[in-house]
Amino acid sequence: MSILFRQYSSGSCQFYRHMSVVASILRYNEFGDPAKVLQIHQETMPDPGTGEVLIKTISAPINPADINTIQGKYPVRPEFPAVGGNECVGEVVAVGEQVTRLAIGDRIVPFASGLGTWRSHALYNETNLMKVPANIGIAEAATITVNPCTAYRMLKDFVNLKAGDSVIQNGANSACGQAIIQLCRAWGIHCVGIVRDRPEINLLRNYLKDLGAAEILTEEELRTTKIFKDGIFKKPKLALNCVGGKNALEISRHLDNHGIMVTYGGMSREPVTVPTASLIFKDLQFSGFWMTRWTKDNAKSSKRSEMFNELFGLIEKNAFKAPAHEMISFTDYVTAVTNALSIQGFVGKKFLFKF
Amino acid sequence: MSILFRQYSSGSCQFYRHMSVVASILRYNEFGDPAKVLQIHQETMPDPGTGEVLIKTISAPINPADINTIQGKYPVRPEFPAVGGNECVGEVVAVGEQVTRLAIGDRIVPFASGLGTWRSHALYNETNLMKVPANIGIAEAATITVNPCTAYRMLKDFVNLKAGDSVIQNGANSACGQAIIQLCRAWGIHCVGIVRDRPEINLLRNYLKDLGAAEILTEEELRTTKIFKDGIFKKPKLALNCVGGKNALEISRHLDNHGIMVTYGGMSREPVTVPTASLIFKDLQFSGFWMTRWTKDNAKSSKRSEMFNELFGLIEKNAFKAPAHEMISFTDYVTAVTNALSIQGFVGKKFLFKF
Repeated sequence: MSILFRQYSSGSCQFYRHMSVVASILRYNEFGDPAKVLQIHQETMPDPGTGEVLIKTISAPINPADINTIQGKYPVRPEFPAVGGNECVGEVVAVGEQVTRLAIGDRIVPFASGLGTWRSHALYNETNLMKVPANIGIAEAATITVNPCTAYRMLKDFVNLKAGDSVIQNGANSACGQAIIQLCRAWGIHCVGIVRDRPEINLLRNYLKDLGAAEILTEEELRTTKIFKDGIFKKPKLALNCVGGKNALEISRHLDNHGIMVTYGGMSREPVTVPTASLIFKDLQFSGFWMTRWTKDNAKSSKRSEMFNELFGLIEKNAFKAPAHEMISFTDYVTAVTNALSIQGFVGKKFLFKF
Repeated sequence: MSILFRQYSSGSCQFYRHMSVVASILRYNEFGDPAKVLQIHQETMPDPGTGEVLIKTISAPINPADINTIQGKYPVRPEFPAVGGNECVGEVVAVGEQVTRLAIGDRIVPFASGLGTWRSHALYNETNLMKVPANIGIAEAATITVNPCTAYRMLKDFVNLKAGDSVIQNGANSACGQAIIQLCRAWGIHCVGIVRDRPEINLLRNYLKDLGAAEILTEEELRTTKIFKDGIFKKPKLALNCVGGKNALEISRHLDNHGIMVTYGGMSREPVTVPTASLIFKDLQFSGFWMTRWTKDNAKSSKRSEMFNELFGLIEKNAFKAPAHEMISFTDYVTAVTNALSIQGFVGKKFLFKF
């Protein structure tokens, strides 16, 4: 199908041409093993409608929640046929009528979740997109809306942290964990990270300390550490938990009185265990955080642009980078979704589709 | 020993007389089984000093925390020799110099915890005492500073409850549970109470419904109830937990999104188990409450007198009564402390010393 694009040249001159855009879309028609239920579907894209823009996807990451959604294990259950993915960075290649905030050539990321980003091209309403400064790296832009935002909100919205305060987190090598470490460094907060022991533990320790972690301990070391008792670091006011089970329990024991544990994942598949005495006598609080809900609740809040501006600013001055990752061809999606949930090497590695 | 009392007669005439006051004091010199480590000690009381008043105790309850303190299982560890008890109602029988707020004949309750109330007479600084209206019953006054205040604060300080909202609680037959039920009734809140099944379940159900419970369910009934799903009651915004373990987990499943579970006891001796999904996707929050800390943190807050005035007002209009209880002679303390932690009959019964 041939459609009419209004295209801007490098000057102020404007011209039109006819071209056909066929999108490759990674879809699924039932819940199940992503390697089996996902299939590439070809679709000729229609003209952008009023308020819409046509996006050419540059890169899109594979997040654990994307896999869980396809497995049918996530509370958000899309209608079929569904398109995988929630994050991407793309470039505007055509704009419809009454599009005022975006122009051809702009880099964008989706400002909403559930758009289905595993596709070479997409039509989005411009209100669902946010323009990204041109000097932001591809991997940083493609992965900014989930993990860095989750890290940012958890560090900002539960406890009033000041420079010199401590935060403790498990899963410190996860994509979100790496974002937490870097934001703590930027804000002068001592981030103590917990990871599972592994053969390459010292490589991982160095990698995370280079990112800005104040200390990296294995689960075994956590049980006997005296870094808080001995005053090397203040007792943490905030614990960030993406593991659950015994690991979360051990972490909660180090929290200061009135401290808060925020849970945003449950990699051990075990619940959080809370001793009665820590609730009553230490006044600990246990809460959860879900970026999808925050984004929905704050769709019109200025907090969103403040957050993205601060994150872009940190990226621009090299104080914040994407998690360890590997670019993988979109057509190699079976490899990508199969490996996305397993530990790759000494640090959890994120796969990003390239198109 | 003979001491000089300034005593007020019924008129404005003031006179002095000499008398000896020998206090019976239930003391302990080591942690352990209360029936074994407690002993009655006789002590002649000195004159009230500046700012002090001499109290003749009328009644003092035996609370679970009193027993736990003597066992050495409570985070507050008194110095030896220690005196048991934290609550009482007494009568002022002598006042020292510069006592301005209290006069002989006034009924008082302690305004601080840890005073050691299991004694026939005591000298207290008047700032540690609160005057009780004369028409408040002995049992209501003797038990007002712990359970009714705990119930009041938990219902006021965590969630903004309005008439028509629901609250769910376990241990609904406990002293605090009975206070929660009555405050909910007074404020138009539907209180659903959970109790363990027992032979006299219907007697207990009727007793608690008469107090104002909207519904009383056994733990088994809780698992299958549809009173919230079917809209008979709104989904609870607040859960009050003094049991822990599976019971608390079941209760948390009925909480509305963004609901809060407040833990103030752990009778099952099992921790609170929190599924990761309920933290992340339901945004549940798990907190604790300890009246001792609240009292310390709010020693000079007007919230305290507002709370007591409201409680006294409810008692005066028969909208709030003491928990099921039995008066027991102070000399029968071994029986009292032995039975204080076990279930007595169809409803948990509180023992109150009479002097």
